Amino acid sequence: MPETRTVLLRLAPAVTGPLIAIDWGTTNRRCFLIEDGRVKATTRDERGALTIHGGDYEGEVAAIRARWGNAPVLIAGMAGSNRGWQEVAYIGCPAKAEDLADGIEWIEPRTVGIVPGVAQHHPRPDVMRGEEVQFLGAIAGGLAPDPGLLCQPGTHCKWAHVADGAIVGFSTAMTGELFALMHDHSLLAPQLQQAAVPGDAFLEGVKDARRFSLPVALFGVRAASLLGKRPDDDAASYTSGLLIGSDVAAQDVSGRAVHILSDGPLGDLYAAATTEFGGRPVIVDGSAAFTTGMSLLWEIANA
Amino acid sequence: MPETRTVLLRLAPAVTGPLIAIDWGTTNRRCFLIEDGRVKATTRDERGALTIHGGDYEGEVAAIRARWGNAPVLIAGMAGSNRGWQEVAYIGCPAKAEDLADGIEWIEPRTVGIVPGVAQHHPRPDVMRGEEVQFLGAIAGGLAPDPGLLCQPGTHCKWAHVADGAIVGFSTAMTGELFALMHDHSLLAPQLQQAAVPGDAFLEGVKDARRFSLPVALFGVRAASLLGKRPDDDAASYTSGLLIGSDVAAQDVSGRAVHILSDGPLGDLYAAATTEFGGRPVIVDGSAAFTTGMSLLWEIANA
Repeated sequence: MPETRTVLLRLAPAVTGPLIAIDWGTTNRRCFLIEDGRVKATTRDERGALTIHGGDYEGEVAAIRARWGNAPVLIAGMAGSNRGWQEVAYIGCPAKAEDLADGIEWIEPRTVGIVPGVAQHHPRPDVMRGEEVQFLGAIAGGLAPDPGLLCQPGTHCKWAHVADGAIVGFSTAMTGELFALMHDHSLLAPQLQQAAVPGDAFLEGVKDARRFSLPVALFGVRAASLLGKRPDDDAASYTSGLLIGSDVAAQDVSGRAVHILSDGPLGDLYAAATTEFGGRPVIVDGSAAFTTGMSLLWEIANA
Repeated sequence: MPETRTVLLRLAPAVTGPLIAIDWGTTNRRCFLIEDGRVKATTRDERGALTIHGGDYEGEVAAIRARWGNAPVLIAGMAGSNRGWQEVAYIGCPAKAEDLADGIEWIEPRTVGIVPGVAQHHPRPDVMRGEEVQFLGAIAGGLAPDPGLLCQPGTHCKWAHVADGAIVGFSTAMTGELFALMHDHSLLAPQLQQAAVPGDAFLEGVKDARRFSLPVALFGVRAASLLGKRPDDDAASYTSGLLIGSDVAAQDVSGRAVHILSDGPLGDLYAAATTEFGGRPVIVDGSAAFTTGMSLLWEIANA
């Protein structure tokens, strides 16, 4: 089992009044009411940016304030994209908390703001919106070391290298989306309806991710079934191992700590793949990293 | 431009009577009327194995004979799968034409037969049904050398190593299916609606296939668009380059001839990727390889 690291929020003393922090993703939204350095209330729903018809973000924020009181609101994630509330320009790497705080777009001055995402131009173009708060919050709160390698698994898995309080480089892998495409629409779909678990079949997939190219290894899932080489009950775990293995193998984790911002089953799968490739996984509480990061940005913006 | 090799059918002298040869795939079907060593008529339609409702293959064959005369019929492809007309057991590697001919399943003795597919058990499980006829037909007809490396691009791209008149090993890459999933269902779908062409953007994708892992490089298509690094008109060609590049890179083509059984735009893309990685592509007429292979199997089966 990987080491698990969750700590109480360590907010800066200056943040004493209430703050509503929103992680506003594409399909999901998480809201946190922070007061006196602690999370007093949370909600999680499916009112992501794609579902805000007519773009009535003002109405959404008013509804949250009606429930939690008239606190200031700081938003991160896809609400700041060109399909969100208001597009907020990316901050280039290396990106520190101070850079993000300076880049906040104020819908209402010092009352409702949207945090910028981070862009990378070399060695390849990449972007994030929302994850940057968790990465910088994790190191600010002592949940992850600086320098360090952090991973946030998901539909588009983010890997960040942090140093000197900044995100210095990152890469996004379409790992979760590839699994969903395989699960929902591919030749393999009928084989992939079980949940993936970090057992032997998963680890076999992780190993095969370094032996074979991904397009070849994926067809092998079908061939193994036709030739009776692997029970179909193991196909989802094996395929998950191929995809996550391909993702982790690209990061050179051997001999390093990898701080994984995901405390669910997906975090366990990434931890198992990291261990298989000689890394040392540490599971980090992503919500604590987010609220720490948002409190820090709020404090800097109001200093 | 790659060398292109198409030759007249070189049928064995014994095949003089008419033969109806059918390449019965999952979604498509191609029928050839062969007589006196030449193809007299062909049809291509979408009556693949998935569309033969109620499994009325007998009626399908009767309809073809009503049009072309009461010739014997030899069938290859998915009609011999467990979702086809009658399941025909795979022949293991190394597989020669004699092995395939011996494995023909006769629906009507010496009149209607189905050719077996080929299975590989090491180093990884793999299967083919239909492509084996083209591979063995290509070397029997002098369209490709023996020993040699042959490639049949498509939804599931097949690579075969042939030696001593046999398929000695092969691998299948889910390249075409991955592109279709990206094109139809992924985050990248809106960017991928142009046709892929073997120009600069394609070759950039081919090169990046060796620099970055596939899940990371695919997300980069989106990031490059958001950051204005690549026109969306080039995204389909670049993405095709990533996928085909990943496929070709796994085959170690450097310094070798690669005989590509596809004379359409897809063959040109595989030829360009092969050249980029230092190989020498030769385009081969897949229909000629198929009819040569089927004539050869028929001749052996009736010897």
